[in-house]
Amino acid sequence: MPTKIDVNAPWKERSDAKKRSVLDGVPARFIHPELEFSTTDTTPLTDVPARYLSPEELSITSLDAVALVRSLAQGTLSAVQVLDAFTHRAAIGHRLLNCCLEFRYRDARQEAERLDALYRQTGTTLGPLHGLPISVKDQCRIVGTETTCGFVAGIGVVDDDDCTLVQILRRAGAVVFVKTNLSFGCMWGETINNVIGRTSNPFNRAFSCGGSSGGEGALLGFRGSPMGVGTDLGGSIRSPSAYQGLWGLRPSSGRIPYHRMLNSMEGNEIVESVVGPMSHSPESLELFVRTVVGQQPWLHDPKCHPIPWRDGVFDDILGGRKLRIGVQDWDGCVLPQPPVRRAIRELEQKLRAAGHELFPWRVDQTEALEILTSAMTCDGRGDHDRTIARSGEPDLQLFFRSSRGPDSVLDTWDHAMRRLQFQAALLRQWNATGTEGQPPMDVYLTPVNPSVCPKHGDYQRVRYLGYTGTVNVLDFTACTIPVTFVDEAVDLADSPDGTSDAAGNPLPAPVSELDRTIRQRYDPSVYKGLPVTVQIVGRRLEEEKVLAIAQVMRRLTALQ
Amino acid sequence: MPTKIDVNAPWKERSDAKKRSVLDGVPARFIHPELEFSTTDTTPLTDVPARYLSPEELSITSLDAVALVRSLAQGTLSAVQVLDAFTHRAAIGHRLLNCCLEFRYRDARQEAERLDALYRQTGTTLGPLHGLPISVKDQCRIVGTETTCGFVAGIGVVDDDDCTLVQILRRAGAVVFVKTNLSFGCMWGETINNVIGRTSNPFNRAFSCGGSSGGEGALLGFRGSPMGVGTDLGGSIRSPSAYQGLWGLRPSSGRIPYHRMLNSMEGNEIVESVVGPMSHSPESLELFVRTVVGQQPWLHDPKCHPIPWRDGVFDDILGGRKLRIGVQDWDGCVLPQPPVRRAIRELEQKLRAAGHELFPWRVDQTEALEILTSAMTCDGRGDHDRTIARSGEPDLQLFFRSSRGPDSVLDTWDHAMRRLQFQAALLRQWNATGTEGQPPMDVYLTPVNPSVCPKHGDYQRVRYLGYTGTVNVLDFTACTIPVTFVDEAVDLADSPDGTSDAAGNPLPAPVSELDRTIRQRYDPSVYKGLPVTVQIVGRRLEEEKVLAIAQVMRRLTALQ
Repeated sequence: MPTKIDVNAPWKERSDAKKRSVLDGVPARFIHPELEFSTTDTTPLTDVPARYLSPEELSITSLDAVALVRSLAQGTLSAVQVLDAFTHRAAIGHRLLNCCLEFRYRDARQEAERLDALYRQTGTTLGPLHGLPISVKDQCRIVGTETTCGFVAGIGVVDDDDCTLVQILRRAGAVVFVKTNLSFGCMWGETINNVIGRTSNPFNRAFSCGGSSGGEGALLGFRGSPMGVGTDLGGSIRSPSAYQGLWGLRPSSGRIPYHRMLNSMEGNEIVESVVGPMSHSPESLELFVRTVVGQQPWLHDPKCHPIPWRDGVFDDILGGRKLRIGVQDWDGCVLPQPPVRRAIRELEQKLRAAGHELFPWRVDQTEALEILTSAMTCDGRGDHDRTIARSGEPDLQLFFRSSRGPDSVLDTWDHAMRRLQFQAALLRQWNATGTEGQPPMDVYLTPVNPSVCPKHGDYQRVRYLGYTGTVNVLDFTACTIPVTFVDEAVDLADSPDGTSDAAGNPLPAPVSELDRTIRQRYDPSVYKGLPVTVQIVGRRLEEEKVLAIAQVMRRLTALQ
Repeated sequence: MPTKIDVNAPWKERSDAKKRSVLDGVPARFIHPELEFSTTDTTPLTDVPARYLSPEELSITSLDAVALVRSLAQGTLSAVQVLDAFTHRAAIGHRLLNCCLEFRYRDARQEAERLDALYRQTGTTLGPLHGLPISVKDQCRIVGTETTCGFVAGIGVVDDDDCTLVQILRRAGAVVFVKTNLSFGCMWGETINNVIGRTSNPFNRAFSCGGSSGGEGALLGFRGSPMGVGTDLGGSIRSPSAYQGLWGLRPSSGRIPYHRMLNSMEGNEIVESVVGPMSHSPESLELFVRTVVGQQPWLHDPKCHPIPWRDGVFDDILGGRKLRIGVQDWDGCVLPQPPVRRAIRELEQKLRAAGHELFPWRVDQTEALEILTSAMTCDGRGDHDRTIARSGEPDLQLFFRSSRGPDSVLDTWDHAMRRLQFQAALLRQWNATGTEGQPPMDVYLTPVNPSVCPKHGDYQRVRYLGYTGTVNVLDFTACTIPVTFVDEAVDLADSPDGTSDAAGNPLPAPVSELDRTIRQRYDPSVYKGLPVTVQIVGRRLEEEKVLAIAQVMRRLTALQ
């Protein structure tokens, strides 16, 4: 429960009060004041938890969500035990990374106790997520919490209703235990705002956790939560998942309920933000989607489609049939850095060795980016400006600002039609892969971002939404696939002019200043140890197929 | 194939040329010049076909689509035979009603001949619609035809591509044989435009066929086509279906492909127009939806959802289980005229007698109407004005004109959020019908319009979109249910002040001038013989459920 903060106070007072309140209610034994936040310390946090957690807490927090719910259902772990272990680890993570906005420990503890009592009395679980702690991006309204969406205007305003997704997760037995940091208005690729500031990457705190669901990325990367809820309008689930080596699902709109979550640019439907899970295994993502969809969210969220979980599609893939996978190793606009190229190459080799068919694939990401930019700037930033005006917080000058004023209504209809034409062209291109007695492509494999990860403050220079944002414009289904880590000895830098790799193989010459900059920013001695993650992309509303193929890929990668 | 019309000619020349060209290519034996269009003759056209058609043609055109495809698949009828019979009847209908915009007889004839050849050679059909003639509202692009959407700007512009729906219908064996008249831009409840003018109602030509899919309504009402394709943004499938005693389905958006159809206000996605079938039996509507959905339209239309035909839901209803049906006999705003009230009452009694459960239901249609009006006027009529400017055609001064100029982008986002809140509130209200161990309501039963049918020119005075438009705002699924005809001896007028019915039973006093006007316009001696039709409404994307319940109702009504 947050310290009651006066909504009429100056923005700085509200922000300071919020920072002080994040850990309110968390037992003192879980708080270690000697741990300090940093944006410069490059030491990975890998060894920290063992210094503070009990062996039991360490063991619990090393499990993925599937293993946790299994142990909870078998009674070998209690909900309170699991909640406490993750709260302890999350509190440590927050001290080091500044990744959380609000712990709701007291309420969560009561919920966990009730679940344990139910289990003791009946021997049964409340639902498939019985006792699973879940962290949520600070767009999810929960009774008694504040929801900021990264704006000071939300500090001190207490929710009186749960969003549909939280209702569903609770009914399934989940314990939503913490709300996580995000970029202001979900509109930036680093997690930064006037609410509590910046969030760091647990693999290297000089790097960003990414954004906008960066608090989730950092917390999950530190294993301070077994399951997170993020949102994605231009890559906001996938980029933090990539930077922390997580599995993250960007579902199509209308599969997972967004209703009653707080968002910026609400009502802008040209390209819609979607909500989805981030976790440590594709099986955990499956657990999440299967559970949420199983509760018929379409009876409560007007935008959800009545599509139940489809076992047929899922089992078809896991039955071991040959997959047909397009590979877009680069898009002709921005060449990925060497570790990302290696990840694609290695995964491609493993897939081919396992008998799957791979072939080149390329999407017109320039067109997609223009559409996305039109959609995200069509109000001339009017919504953002009116939101920051409500609290008086300063403008961070990071938003995608259109050089034009707001568009006319007819302009926005043109954007929507341009999006539709682009989507239709892509469907034709996709269908055309099905020639010569072969079924069409199942998914395509492509980088999440050309950069491995941005250093703090670097995003401004390396921002390129082509690989992620295209999926949003298409409203396709995508899942991140963690493949490897940057290996200083293997992932050598390209030649300084960017025209050949370290082995002397020619590379396509840089086609833009951005392309050149991103190549040049890569430095093996600085980037070493960071996770390297790619994504697979399926058609619209193909969550089952994409999650099943993610499991196929997990079995092939050495990482998991 | 249309006479080649110069797109640079003055609008009146283009319009005149279009009028002359409608029957181009239709064999002379099907054209009876002595038949003349009228907007004043009150004699029903019931007896006309028998005077011109052969007994075989009469017999063929009396069959519904299901019976036709059965006979075609059994080889007892040929595609050419069926096409010719309907072309003959449609040509008669057009002379009398002015309901068609373009016959494509030569192409259709070739297609029918190819289907017959296939059947002769292989003994098999091309697909489930093998040889079925289908008429389409003039929004459907078909290679070689003009598509006007009711605007002169489209005259002389020849399509070079088929819309997705026509592609799918053709692949299933259908023969799209004629394009039908519609209101300008699909934006008026009478079928009127500068392209070919006004369309009359075959039951009484002094009455309108309704709109905007009014050409379909008139042609199908005259049985000049066994299956029609209409669209519905505020009732445009359901009103013409009601006025001609047809079964018409308004599916939810994303079920039947709209892609590459021409529309006005393209890109306006606050409330979306949908495309659906109109026909002579609910079984025909089922055939249409089952066939289209069976071809996976989502692989071609980016807006279609991957939802296959769901037999489970369908069979569950037809298995005879008790239905729970809400009844909104009026909405508290505009009381329906006496025949509509009788239709609801009689259907209610039959349903109750058959063991179904009925209970009162009411939707806040005032809120819905405000949302719909905001959505339809948010461009300050900019799209309409630029379209009529392209040809120089005169403004018919009938459009919903907002008193304001165009909205801002932020205003339109507010409209979208208001729609979402309304949808969510309705879902809560609907879910709440499921208390006390009872499942929630299956569908609700309500008038299509408060008026039986508008006389030509009357729509301006009796326009009330509450009953139809609410369904569009909710994006729910609805089907019209023809129940009876106006019986001069039974459907007596209410008292002149509208406070009691003919039997002296008190009525709620008129609450507005519109409410009063609609009550007063009803006159049994003028309205006699007109069809009386109601609608059932299911939740979003519940086409199977709604179509199954429509079949249950057909079996209960004496009309069919």
